[in-house]
Amino acid sequence: MAQKPSIPKGTRDFNPEQVAKRNYIFSTIKGAFETFGFQPIETPSFENSETLMGKYGDEGDRLIFKILNSGDFLKNIDYQELKKELLEEKVGNITSLEDGTYNVDGNVKEFQDKIKEYIKDTYLTEKALRYDLTVPFARYVVQHQNDIEFPFKRYQIQPVWRADRPQKGRFREFYQCDADVVGSTSLWQEVEFIQLYDTVFTALKLNGVTIKINNRKILSGIAEVIGASDKLIDFTVALDKLDKIGEEKVKEEMLSKGISASGIEKLQPLFSLSGDFESQIESLKGILEASEDGKKGIEELSFIDAAIKELGLATAKLQLDVTLARGLNYYTGAIFEVSAPEGVKMGSIGGGGRYDDLTNIFGKPDTSGVGISFGLDRIYLVLEELNLFPETVNKNVEVLFINFGDKEALFSLKAIKKLREAGINAELYPDAAKMKKQMAHADKRNIPFVVIVGDQEIASETYALKNMSSGEQFKIPLNELIQQIK
Amino acid sequence: MAQKPSIPKGTRDFNPEQVAKRNYIFSTIKGAFETFGFQPIETPSFENSETLMGKYGDEGDRLIFKILNSGDFLKNIDYQELKKELLEEKVGNITSLEDGTYNVDGNVKEFQDKIKEYIKDTYLTEKALRYDLTVPFARYVVQHQNDIEFPFKRYQIQPVWRADRPQKGRFREFYQCDADVVGSTSLWQEVEFIQLYDTVFTALKLNGVTIKINNRKILSGIAEVIGASDKLIDFTVALDKLDKIGEEKVKEEMLSKGISASGIEKLQPLFSLSGDFESQIESLKGILEASEDGKKGIEELSFIDAAIKELGLATAKLQLDVTLARGLNYYTGAIFEVSAPEGVKMGSIGGGGRYDDLTNIFGKPDTSGVGISFGLDRIYLVLEELNLFPETVNKNVEVLFINFGDKEALFSLKAIKKLREAGINAELYPDAAKMKKQMAHADKRNIPFVVIVGDQEIASETYALKNMSSGEQFKIPLNELIQQIK
Repeated sequence: MAQKPSIPKGTRDFNPEQVAKRNYIFSTIKGAFETFGFQPIETPSFENSETLMGKYGDEGDRLIFKILNSGDFLKNIDYQELKKELLEEKVGNITSLEDGTYNVDGNVKEFQDKIKEYIKDTYLTEKALRYDLTVPFARYVVQHQNDIEFPFKRYQIQPVWRADRPQKGRFREFYQCDADVVGSTSLWQEVEFIQLYDTVFTALKLNGVTIKINNRKILSGIAEVIGASDKLIDFTVALDKLDKIGEEKVKEEMLSKGISASGIEKLQPLFSLSGDFESQIESLKGILEASEDGKKGIEELSFIDAAIKELGLATAKLQLDVTLARGLNYYTGAIFEVSAPEGVKMGSIGGGGRYDDLTNIFGKPDTSGVGISFGLDRIYLVLEELNLFPETVNKNVEVLFINFGDKEALFSLKAIKKLREAGINAELYPDAAKMKKQMAHADKRNIPFVVIVGDQEIASETYALKNMSSGEQFKIPLNELIQQIK
Repeated sequence: MAQKPSIPKGTRDFNPEQVAKRNYIFSTIKGAFETFGFQPIETPSFENSETLMGKYGDEGDRLIFKILNSGDFLKNIDYQELKKELLEEKVGNITSLEDGTYNVDGNVKEFQDKIKEYIKDTYLTEKALRYDLTVPFARYVVQHQNDIEFPFKRYQIQPVWRADRPQKGRFREFYQCDADVVGSTSLWQEVEFIQLYDTVFTALKLNGVTIKINNRKILSGIAEVIGASDKLIDFTVALDKLDKIGEEKVKEEMLSKGISASGIEKLQPLFSLSGDFESQIESLKGILEASEDGKKGIEELSFIDAAIKELGLATAKLQLDVTLARGLNYYTGAIFEVSAPEGVKMGSIGGGGRYDDLTNIFGKPDTSGVGISFGLDRIYLVLEELNLFPETVNKNVEVLFINFGDKEALFSLKAIKKLREAGINAELYPDAAKMKKQMAHADKRNIPFVVIVGDQEIASETYALKNMSSGEQFKIPLNELIQQIK
């Protein structure tokens, strides 16, 4: 291979610094998940196609990566078989003539269908790469339901794959970090998820995130009140754009979707909703008086708000956002979305909600679930932009021993062994290269300490420790060396 | 979907306990990698097909999972286009007749080739799932060579996929844990890898593993001495079976492969090699006197053995095994293999060696590398068999608060918040279910402590802490609660 190797578009290599920073985020999230009582599961990277297909809409189906059944697609095409199937047996209208030619009679469509069928039966994929963690989790819960003690609180941090067109910030392979509870309808779960978001972002020193909350019942209540229950999706899609396109355009879109002018008239108070959580709730009460669904939504939101006020949040803000409609097809109760602190341009860095029917698709009804997700890649970008990664995040080598030859190397390795036992990341330069080259190596790798061991040091059982940033150098015994570097 | 969902054969779900145990092994290995100066990288799950194909032999190519180019293979077949390509333009001998039929003239082979070509060009996969971590690492090193400071010590712990026939202990998705150094020919690397194996297995309390070592130069030297240099592979494959089939059968196999009887005669001292490392080396010196390659191999092994004797191993044994030929096509110097402690029936739990030409396949010559790998799944089985997983490995919930209603729940959540801040995994039972049900839940999940909060406790700001194994119960204030559970 002459040309420089590359990786598929939409995928990434991560160098040691990037891995360390990503692991810092992962381990912060994992730590919080665990103190909140969530336990990890892992599912296979690929699922049976039938597990995934049809669960994400037509668009989703298209974006699922399929894996070929056999290791080598072309190698296993049996052309003799293909010939037989196509030309002799299966396609009645193709006939072999005595002069060695074939006659394809009339129906080209049928001929094409036969090719399609043959390829499908023989070579098509039965496996597909995980598109998200939610559907595999639902599959897991149903498959292992007899071994699971409900309510079941699980977290899962694994990569997912989507055949999306790659663009800035959108990848074909990326991690999802999900926590879900299934088997309980208790609103305390919603309360705890808000606390969990607060805990994680506080631990990441990302202060001032906004946790937006809404409830599907509020949205369906409003749709009911304005006589657009049958247009719930159109209605919420339009409402969701309020921030971006403004009130007038939203109204135009609703009109164009067939929502009546008198209905839109009734929405007026919604457009001027303002103030804190409680005053917004008060306004909603007026709007939703006539809807049982809407009143239930208000009740749920009020419960959550009251509990959070009692419990307090460390650095995050909770905000009611009635335009929030994220994944509405899916959520049946609370809807969450987290946005980065003001001043940081970034889409949502987390989201979630309650879904009542998830495991139903695999045959287990009546199992309510609620969960949240953290957007790793965006959180990474925000921490980078705000310079919030701790300096110590990179588990770099702390000390490099200069190599002057086999005798010195062996003496050094004895010390290195002790340092490592003390938990210090230490290494020997592998070759007896020129001193200058070895020092440059330490410099390029940002190794903070270098140890120099020559005849004198061996004789006196000491080590010359050089601090690479200050340039200071001391000759000290091993126990002091360990202390200094620690 | 009516039937119970399942996962593809050869793949696995991992429940919380299994994930915790696997993570215990991973984090032990990672910790050791880092103290030895290795830094983590990650590469994408799928590579361009051309990066992987042809690197693992024909058998390997067949076992590589290919991903379809498009999200949906069938959906994107353009049958009109296929018709045009096949029936009208590209295949000269197929003619459309005026009566609406087609005439396929004579050459069926050509017709088949056209189908093949069309499918290949249009629908075939350009991406394939990672088969191991070594080839992606080589690709990474070449691709990023300008950003890498050599010698480069990296570790990588990621899953790989192989379309192998699944069987006991062999999976289609499994993790590899690799550490490699590229850019140095120093034998100190080999010495450090032996120390690294010792460090990891000692930390896992898996005492008494045997680190077997050989050197390709020993094997090629012997082949040279017996006049079978051109039959090196046949020779080593036969020799590798000595343990299993015995001396006579090995000799028979060599004879059958065309190695001369007089050559095999010269091998006699090899079959009776015994004793410790040094005495085996002495015997080898006699055998390999006439081979420069062989003498170099002896020199390398002696250097490594002497260094390890000086540095000492905590719990592992180093053993010379001249029959060890693991991946010979690949390795150019040292060859390692680790076997579980005596009495445990298990294949190798680790292996590795030195390879001089790895990055050459991607256009970067003269970059020697050496590395080792840990077999996670087998190590897991051995630790399980020997009951070596620490009891604390499972990050289970430490305390469950019983839920008697909203007032009690809120009071409890205030305490839970403090417990979590103190690093204790704590949770509230989400619903005000019957006491018995909640206690049974704690029991089934092996939660060691339960806290009961009623009116009395709220009034006195105390918590009734019940130890689930002893049955003891105390009423204590919050600070004591934290102390007790910790």
